[in-house]
Amino acid sequence: MALASLVNGRSSDEISLHDRGLQYGDGVFETIALENARLLCWDEHIARLRAACNQLHIPMPDEAVLVDEVSRLTQITKQGIIKIIITRGLGGRGYALPDTVAATRIISLYALGDCPHENATTGINARVCAYRYTQNQALAGIKHLNRLEQILARSEWDDDAIAEGIVLDRDDMVIEGTMSNIFYMAQEILYTPDLSACGINGIIRQKIIELAVDLNIEVCIRMTPLALLMTADEVFICNSIIGLWPIKMIDAQSFPVGDKTHKIRQTLQKRHIIPTPC
Amino acid sequence: MALASLVNGRSSDEISLHDRGLQYGDGVFETIALENARLLCWDEHIARLRAACNQLHIPMPDEAVLVDEVSRLTQITKQGIIKIIITRGLGGRGYALPDTVAATRIISLYALGDCPHENATTGINARVCAYRYTQNQALAGIKHLNRLEQILARSEWDDDAIAEGIVLDRDDMVIEGTMSNIFYMAQEILYTPDLSACGINGIIRQKIIELAVDLNIEVCIRMTPLALLMTADEVFICNSIIGLWPIKMIDAQSFPVGDKTHKIRQTLQKRHIIPTPC
Repeated sequence: MALASLVNGRSSDEISLHDRGLQYGDGVFETIALENARLLCWDEHIARLRAACNQLHIPMPDEAVLVDEVSRLTQITKQGIIKIIITRGLGGRGYALPDTVAATRIISLYALGDCPHENATTGINARVCAYRYTQNQALAGIKHLNRLEQILARSEWDDDAIAEGIVLDRDDMVIEGTMSNIFYMAQEILYTPDLSACGINGIIRQKIIELAVDLNIEVCIRMTPLALLMTADEVFICNSIIGLWPIKMIDAQSFPVGDKTHKIRQTLQKRHIIPTPC
Repeated sequence: MALASLVNGRSSDEISLHDRGLQYGDGVFETIALENARLLCWDEHIARLRAACNQLHIPMPDEAVLVDEVSRLTQITKQGIIKIIITRGLGGRGYALPDTVAATRIISLYALGDCPHENATTGINARVCAYRYTQNQALAGIKHLNRLEQILARSEWDDDAIAEGIVLDRDDMVIEGTMSNIFYMAQEILYTPDLSACGINGIIRQKIIELAVDLNIEVCIRMTPLALLMTADEVFICNSIIGLWPIKMIDAQSFPVGDKTHKIRQTLQKRHIIPTPC
């Protein structure tokens, strides 16, 4: 549960039943790391939130309002997670867009979860999910509130030794993890799957693609059959909260935690793009 | 807005921010017509709700509890709409299913909307949506709270003269309306699209398929290219609230409102499967 939440600027743990966020999952969200009182990649999260709102024709709140509300919460603690949800607000029955929309702003502060420090250093175990993501270009890339696909994929295991599931699309192409993007090194090139038909183009994914240039690593976005991933030299996942976790095992296939992976992680940390593992 | 709502049996218009129904659209729903104090097709709605809960591993509340709570609301009025939402309840951050789930029950009573009586008699105008539904066999048929696809389709028009949009899948096969199932007559056979990969298998759709046998109408579920629908002799849509509406026009193509359509509608009304148009 959250340490504190604001709904439209008012301290609250509840929203209206008639909010379209609940009725239809009609909204978008961002999850942002708070480290030493600094909100990592704030500008990028706000830009993506704005793009998602625009794509779904939800009015984007003023950034100044969001900054003010988030800063009220970040006075509570210097380390944690901020989640911002913007919904299409109140509505009656029916899918038609209301004539006038007053978006609902929900901002919550969470404590950091208790993930082992070793996840970031010696790596994690992952599995390949049986569930396949659907391809939907109209919704691809948007962090929206319709997350049953991720829930179905994540529900396939409850073994704490497995930290992430890798999800393919129905053409058996690797897309991403249930909560993360995926990268892999092969023949000195850094690859990440193409997300034009499904998946979320994560902020950290974008940052790693930019960073690779600085680190003199060639980077390439490509359609990735599972078999290709399984022959990679190094594999890692990333998101705004976990930062970067090397994968040491996918099902029965092991991978070394390589120099490039460490180098990318350390550079992301040094530049305050991802939090330092706790 | 609802006339009244109960959340887990308590009169309320709010739910927790931390309900997975809001956070992820992690829940299912049913919408039931209330006519002359009678809940139409109650058993069928409860059976589908149970099936949906089972499919998503959400604990189904006892039917006796639902009956009790619904009957508290139906004392307020004899005509209206009951909407039941069951979510996976409270959860922390992350897609993983909580170790123990206490489902949230949300039951709301709505007044009837103000749709013209002629919709049921002389028919409606419809359009073909540009948006294409994704095919997802794991979620097909479930009335879940992830409804952005319907919202995207419904957002394509705001002309009150158009009462429904017809949505195809990405193989250009007709699936259903944004809020209804679709049927059509051709060469004395009643057809409805195959929904095994997407769409909602509506209660009224199922009832019409059963009813056709009684009425000596041959009925067939088939893949339906749009061009085939456009050559139909009669076309109609149905759901639990609107009942049955003939379609008199799809884009520029007109259709007669035929005898079979009237016969099916009248029989559904007589048997208290659909409400009588107000």
